[in-house]
Amino acid sequence: MAWNTNLRWRLPLTCLLLQGAMVILFGVFVRYDFQADAHWWTGRVRRNLSDQENEFYYRYPSFEDVHVMVFVGFGFLMTFLQRYGFSAVGFNFLLAAFGIQWALLMQGWFHSFQDSHILVGVENLINADFCVASVCVAFGAVLGKVSPIQLLIMTFFQVTLFAVNEFILLNLLQVKDAGGSMTIHTFGAYFGLTVTRILYRRNLEQSKERESSVYQSDLFAMIGTLFLWMYWPSFNSAISYHGDSQHRAAINTYCSLAACVLTSVATSSALHKKGKLDMVHIQNATLAGGVAVGTAAEMMLMPYGSLIVGFLCGIFSTLGFVYLTPFLESRLQIQDTCGINNLHGIPGIIGGIVGAVTAASASPEVYGEEGLVHSFDFQGSKANWTPRTQGKFQIYGLLVTLGMALMGGIIVGLILRLPFWGQPSDENCFEDAVYWEIPKGNNTVYIPEDPTFKPSASSVPSVSMTSPLPMASSVPLVP
Amino acid sequence: MAWNTNLRWRLPLTCLLLQGAMVILFGVFVRYDFQADAHWWTGRVRRNLSDQENEFYYRYPSFEDVHVMVFVGFGFLMTFLQRYGFSAVGFNFLLAAFGIQWALLMQGWFHSFQDSHILVGVENLINADFCVASVCVAFGAVLGKVSPIQLLIMTFFQVTLFAVNEFILLNLLQVKDAGGSMTIHTFGAYFGLTVTRILYRRNLEQSKERESSVYQSDLFAMIGTLFLWMYWPSFNSAISYHGDSQHRAAINTYCSLAACVLTSVATSSALHKKGKLDMVHIQNATLAGGVAVGTAAEMMLMPYGSLIVGFLCGIFSTLGFVYLTPFLESRLQIQDTCGINNLHGIPGIIGGIVGAVTAASASPEVYGEEGLVHSFDFQGSKANWTPRTQGKFQIYGLLVTLGMALMGGIIVGLILRLPFWGQPSDENCFEDAVYWEIPKGNNTVYIPEDPTFKPSASSVPSVSMTSPLPMASSVPLVP
Amino acid sequence: MAWNTNLRWRLPLTCLLLQGAMVILFGVFVRYDFQADAHWWTGRVRRNLSDQENEFYYRYPSFEDVHVMVFVGFGFLMTFLQRYGFSAVGFNFLLAAFGIQWALLMQGWFHSFQDSHILVGVENLINADFCVASVCVAFGAVLGKVSPIQLLIMTFFQVTLFAVNEFILLNLLQVKDAGGSMTIHTFGAYFGLTVTRILYRRNLEQSKERESSVYQSDLFAMIGTLFLWMYWPSFNSAISYHGDSQHRAAINTYCSLAACVLTSVATSSALHKKGKLDMVHIQNATLAGGVAVGTAAEMMLMPYGSLIVGFLCGIFSTLGFVYLTPFLESRLQIQDTCGINNLHGIPGIIGGIVGAVTAASASPEVYGEEGLVHSFDFQGSKANWTPRTQGKFQIYGLLVTLGMALMGGIIVGLILRLPFWGQPSDENCFEDAVYWEIPKGNNTVYIPEDPTFKPSASSVPSVSMTSPLPMASSVPLVP
Repeated sequence: MAWNTNLRWRLPLTCLLLQGAMVILFGVFVRYDFQADAHWWTGRVRRNLSDQENEFYYRYPSFEDVHVMVFVGFGFLMTFLQRYGFSAVGFNFLLAAFGIQWALLMQGWFHSFQDSHILVGVENLINADFCVASVCVAFGAVLGKVSPIQLLIMTFFQVTLFAVNEFILLNLLQVKDAGGSMTIHTFGAYFGLTVTRILYRRNLEQSKERESSVYQSDLFAMIGTLFLWMYWPSFNSAISYHGDSQHRAAINTYCSLAACVLTSVATSSALHKKGKLDMVHIQNATLAGGVAVGTAAEMMLMPYGSLIVGFLCGIFSTLGFVYLTPFLESRLQIQDTCGINNLHGIPGIIGGIVGAVTAASASPEVYGEEGLVHSFDFQGSKANWTPRTQGKFQIYGLLVTLGMALMGGIIVGLILRLPFWGQPSDENCFEDAVYWEIPKGNNTVYIPEDPTFKPSASSVPSVSMTSPLPMASSVPLVP
Repeated sequence: MAWNTNLRWRLPLTCLLLQGAMVILFGVFVRYDFQADAHWWTGRVRRNLSDQENEFYYRYPSFEDVHVMVFVGFGFLMTFLQRYGFSAVGFNFLLAAFGIQWALLMQGWFHSFQDSHILVGVENLINADFCVASVCVAFGAVLGKVSPIQLLIMTFFQVTLFAVNEFILLNLLQVKDAGGSMTIHTFGAYFGLTVTRILYRRNLEQSKERESSVYQSDLFAMIGTLFLWMYWPSFNSAISYHGDSQHRAAINTYCSLAACVLTSVATSSALHKKGKLDMVHIQNATLAGGVAVGTAAEMMLMPYGSLIVGFLCGIFSTLGFVYLTPFLESRLQIQDTCGINNLHGIPGIIGGIVGAVTAASASPEVYGEEGLVHSFDFQGSKANWTPRTQGKFQIYGLLVTLGMALMGGIIVGLILRLPFWGQPSDENCFEDAVYWEIPKGNNTVYIPEDPTFKPSASSVPSVSMTSPLPMASSVPLVP
Repeated sequence: MAWNTNLRWRLPLTCLLLQGAMVILFGVFVRYDFQADAHWWTGRVRRNLSDQENEFYYRYPSFEDVHVMVFVGFGFLMTFLQRYGFSAVGFNFLLAAFGIQWALLMQGWFHSFQDSHILVGVENLINADFCVASVCVAFGAVLGKVSPIQLLIMTFFQVTLFAVNEFILLNLLQVKDAGGSMTIHTFGAYFGLTVTRILYRRNLEQSKERESSVYQSDLFAMIGTLFLWMYWPSFNSAISYHGDSQHRAAINTYCSLAACVLTSVATSSALHKKGKLDMVHIQNATLAGGVAVGTAAEMMLMPYGSLIVGFLCGIFSTLGFVYLTPFLESRLQIQDTCGINNLHGIPGIIGGIVGAVTAASASPEVYGEEGLVHSFDFQGSKANWTPRTQGKFQIYGLLVTLGMALMGGIIVGLILRLPFWGQPSDENCFEDAVYWEIPKGNNTVYIPEDPTFKPSASSVPSVSMTSPLPMASSVPLVP
């Protein structure tokens, strides 16, 4: 069936309604926290603080790095599709811009609510970006198959569930999850995979030709990959305790990511009959190491521990792209456009387990007496906790997260299945022209055989002519 | 008429002359300020300061973000034209590199001049980048229609006028303008619009075909958009007072920009008969919120206040692109290539007014007694000022800025009209090949109809063949 | 001869072997330094330090900037080749990911070895990135002519030699080289040039057509150029002493780079018969100023001194691209793909000399008594040193570096010449399809004459049809 994809009234109304609600809710609830309020000038004197000691200077650089990961990192990583670049970067922009506002409210009610107001500072901005990152992850699963309206609705519900799940983990179960292996990646991935399962499209192969990359779209995607890779140490350390925890989180992530690159390349080459590399693996599997040290990054995982995590995840992730993704689609009817199960799902679970084991095996020898207490807050309500207890609760946290993701994904998936959200028909998926006015003079191309390339023994190419796969829609719109 | 666009001697001479002058003037005037001078080592002991308290650590991260906005942000934002990418990013690079040096001198004479020397530190670098940002804004209006020599001349005069205007506002009128809604955006926009009015080209439609984007050029432009959007909180907070002011400025900008994205999308979709989004709006209108909170960002605008500003500017800016820009060209003969009036002009004026109102309505309840005095420097010469007075002077500042921009634009425009600056003829505008050696193997393309795209009910495309609009010049140069 | 370029077993084994070795060596040697270890919590109290005083906050922002330069900067700068974008950014990613790990070990043994362990903190991460930067420089010389296995082997040896050379310079000769003009750029450039000389390919002109850019590949390269240019002040100041030294290093680099842009543009235009600009010069020569102030950046070079250095290097570098590179290839059989001799080689040597002169002419008047001692560590073993001595040793450092680079380059070059590393045959150089699975629907294009471009008097184009030079390999692989 060809659904109506004309969003002329639906999209504007959805955006204005949501944004209007944000204005009202912010007006009622959101204020500046102590360090961002002009009364600081009064307070700082009383509290004998200098302006230089403002939290801003210890969190803001990390915040900006995380901000870049969410908007350029995820946005461009998804531009790999040949005819879906506008939507990848544009819809990611849209959902993230809405998501951070809604996240400020949801997380604020749970964590920064004081005498009937949500007090926001730079740390809230980081957490809002974190929350949205999990939506960007889920976006990867449904990329090309949903309308911007569906994305806004998904964002609304996912942010809500994220905040609840985060509250259960951090406040009730009191687990540690600095880089969000569980709260961000595992939750985002399995929420998204469940949604895409519910939205299963039987005749998607009608759009299969468009569900692949072209040369330049792969280069654009590498911009996303590299900014995610380079700033991941900031991501995993952004909200750790000041001092050694934050410092350590950055080092561990740096190491894990480095190891991950080499094993991804190794696996990618080993799985190709001519030993050639596949851009999909380089764009995605190389990042799995960052996901997998998310929970343990701030712990005494040790640099070699990080290398081991990265080493394994590079292999698992690449194997996932080659064997698991096709299996999920053919057998479980899970159409995972970006393969988020391999980049965020499995590495996220590994990260949760690594975190639990690292916590359980913590000892005063390794952390120092005070260090142990400080690192895991073994005081107050946790005074009688042992590393073992911590490890146990970390596992509970992982299980709760999986449960929340599946349950939430089913409900939200069913809502998104309603036929009036402007979703594209099966033959028009992965197509910018459905929602965007595409410039007429696009780079659609015909593929001649290269006269200059002389294949050497080991790389005999098929010279079969293939039908043109344009970089962009070649459908000029009526002016 | 076909003017001579061969710059072989004129461009090199202009560059060397200007750079030579910079060397001499820097030699005579520029030295390191206290915190960047080796004597710091002596002074710090005397002043009982630690190396960690060096201003560098509180301003440098913001500086780098601003630096990225000027060179990658503005540079790539303007690569949206299909055949003008080299010039957009290359000429922006050239004028900004010259502009920051000249700005260090001009602003230095006004603000950092001590016993016959200009003392520079990291804050001077930020201000120089700010000054150049207003030139990049003006560049957007004349993009594609001027030669690099004209750009260097424009930069020279605009930086000079910018510094004078900034001095009048900040020192004489004592207004607050942290993010430069007035000094940077309003000034840059109306200066540029006046210049392009004076340089009106009657037969520009001969180049109209080239004055549009192609698929990839729009993706390149999104790189610029996103880096501007992500780092704007750093831009608006970069030179605010340490502590709460800087912290608050970042939060307000973050909020305003987020709201702006949703309303830009809403308006863009609502104005298209099929509800499709226009990349031009997503690339530009989404940034208007950052411009419009420039002045008030460091004030107690409140997060919801920021959302309201962003909400409105997203709408106004998009409307401007659809209705105002064509009107300005047809009626007022203002050819605004990038639509800077919609992104910097109107939002800049709104920002100035918002700043005035926010200042006028400041109160001890909201700021705290000391907070109020500190935020607006109500001491010394301003000891007897009330918020009202401040608000009044903010408006004066806005008016002075508009006057300076128009006056300056007329004079500079007339200078640039002289026929020997190597400007392109009307039929060769928006064309890289005029000033650049273009690689032969370019991505010029022919547009077949896409065999795979099945238009659904709501998006019936015209299948009319359109003439090729290449991504780059297809004129191979003689080796 | 057509060598076997099927890396199916060789590449995976090399990667896994190297990464496995890293895991073991990290396990045996690498631990967290005091500031990243949980015992900090104990120590900080004893040492009366606050978490805010952790080194992390004074080095991390600079580290991230350097990180971006290595991966996005160098990676994208080399995407200018029309059919080698995947390899440029992908292989750079691979070698850098391995290099930073090996560098942490090599540099650690020399500089951070305490009671049988290498203690790493954020400064080690910066130094590891620095070391890898010199490998990225060398990669520029052999770009397109080597296999990823050869690159990994080259990285292994170059990092080793880099660490030795760095130890000789910094510890034995006690020279200053904050931005690495000598240790990073001169070493990397002449090492790479020697290697490419040894790997001379007599019949490379068979791939000449592919050894050039296309319109979009040049735009992608500009992403690399700009991120290198913008973050270079962080690069040159990243490991300077806290306070004025770091502050000054950033200012000097900012000035030098700005001047360099104008003179590069001037020279590029002056050398073209029609005064047109060449993207190659804009992409590379504009960065020479950053290289050339590397050593002296933290010294009292003075802003005008920096301008002079940038002024000259922009000219020399551009001249090098036009006259020297062809000469090196035709006469000395040095095939320098990216022209690193012009961007890193000559400017690096100039930087070393500038550093020596600046050091030799240091005086108490300029630095202050304590400042002089502090800046050059004229205490302990250097107590009796004069600025002259320092200058002399700076020159020794430069000579040692050149010697190490040439010697090392010859040895490594000979190793890389062994026929079983999977290098491409002469007719398949600069070709992604040899090592990558290239998406079928690529942007290969045919070049029609542009119907709309009316050449003006000064830019009469040849309209001769040229054979298609696709952006990507047009060889579809068998599924």
